Amino acid sequence: MQIAIVVYPGMTALDAIGPYEVLAGIRDRELRFVWKEVGPIVTDSNALVLGATHTFAETPRPDIVLIPGSSADTVTTMADSTVIAWLRSVHPHTRFTTSVCSGALVLGAAGLLEGRPATTHWMAMPMLKTFGAIPQPDARVVQDGKIITAAGVSAGIDMALTLMAQLEGDDAARVAQLIIEYDPRPPFDDGHVSKASPEIRKAAVRRMARLAINPRDLLSAPKVLARRWLRR
Amino acid sequence: MQIAIVVYPGMTALDAIGPYEVLAGIRDRELRFVWKEVGPIVTDSNALVLGATHTFAETPRPDIVLIPGSSADTVTTMADSTVIAWLRSVHPHTRFTTSVCSGALVLGAAGLLEGRPATTHWMAMPMLKTFGAIPQPDARVVQDGKIITAAGVSAGIDMALTLMAQLEGDDAARVAQLIIEYDPRPPFDDGHVSKASPEIRKAAVRRMARLAINPRDLLSAPKVLARRWLRR
Repeated sequence: MQIAIVVYPGMTALDAIGPYEVLAGIRDRELRFVWKEVGPIVTDSNALVLGATHTFAETPRPDIVLIPGSSADTVTTMADSTVIAWLRSVHPHTRFTTSVCSGALVLGAAGLLEGRPATTHWMAMPMLKTFGAIPQPDARVVQDGKIITAAGVSAGIDMALTLMAQLEGDDAARVAQLIIEYDPRPPFDDGHVSKASPEIRKAAVRRMARLAINPRDLLSAPKVLARRWLRR
Repeated sequence: MQIAIVVYPGMTALDAIGPYEVLAGIRDRELRFVWKEVGPIVTDSNALVLGATHTFAETPRPDIVLIPGSSADTVTTMADSTVIAWLRSVHPHTRFTTSVCSGALVLGAAGLLEGRPATTHWMAMPMLKTFGAIPQPDARVVQDGKIITAAGVSAGIDMALTLMAQLEGDDAARVAQLIIEYDPRPPFDDGHVSKASPEIRKAAVRRMARLAINPRDLLSAPKVLARRWLRR
């Protein structure tokens, strides 16, 4: 079972790491973090670095594909011909093709959501229609055949448990839930846009606008980092 | 506000990345991923790599410290004199010193939990007493003054929201919750050990035993990786 988690400059780390931590528990899995080249990937905080372990070219037949979203810049990835060509090429052969958060827009840009129900981060929800998808703003996880989309960021954990149950059975998913002690007790109840006040919603939109990062900074950082890491 | 997240070979990524994704939203924060040297850190899946951005020596006065746990090997870090000396040296000056999962055992090994209530991953709970801590097996987040400990893995998200509310006010924490769309709806209810059946608990313990990794593999990997990353 080969699991390919796409990583890209400016991605939101938790979109990938939540599901990863669940799926890492699959027996006989091979986990890959896939990008155009192996090496360090700078995420949307401009502080956290994740490692790409394999290239798209090295990964022609993954069983599971997961594409995370980005608070900084999803558009560059949606317009990236390598990413889109790879998604179109691998999707017909996957067992499941999945997204978290604004990663759904990348699946959309690849033409995979045409006529399908899907979800994404609440701020990205209106954009789903651009790709012919049918937005499901109240669903945390939407499955349509072998395509599974999750709502924003932390929803990837719920998505991965749903996926794990289908891959390995309910008990395996329950074990995974217990191992990551996923018994959520958030101190507030503002996790869904329908529950947050207009003031909190406005403040969230303002903060997201501040998070946008210059894509050039994210792209030039990896080689500088790798050199620094070797010097020490 | 300098936030120092400790990273180490064999750590559980979600322990750090859950809270990181919340705390990244703090205004004027400086996020650091701290280890003995900067460079790639191989986590407990032996597939995911996180980047250490700063050394302990470069980070003498963090405002917030977070130490994650490990499913593969917490003991090596508990016995690491550099980690322990750093924790003892920075703790008197922090605003908050925090742990997720078995990271509490590292705080314990540094002598910081003596006589204090604390929590950790349910499998590590009995070990808290070794360090004079008072285990709180039913609590997801335990705060005792400026020390905050979280239960297993995903509990770090709840912990970080609690912490954010104290640092920046309830509204800032609510905004952070909405941005990561933390409106959990797990498909099962096995997240706490008291809710899981004896069979699921036994299977979880068996799987954790399988996860143990040879620490030597984790320690030799980073330089090999950095070289591979530069070659491409």
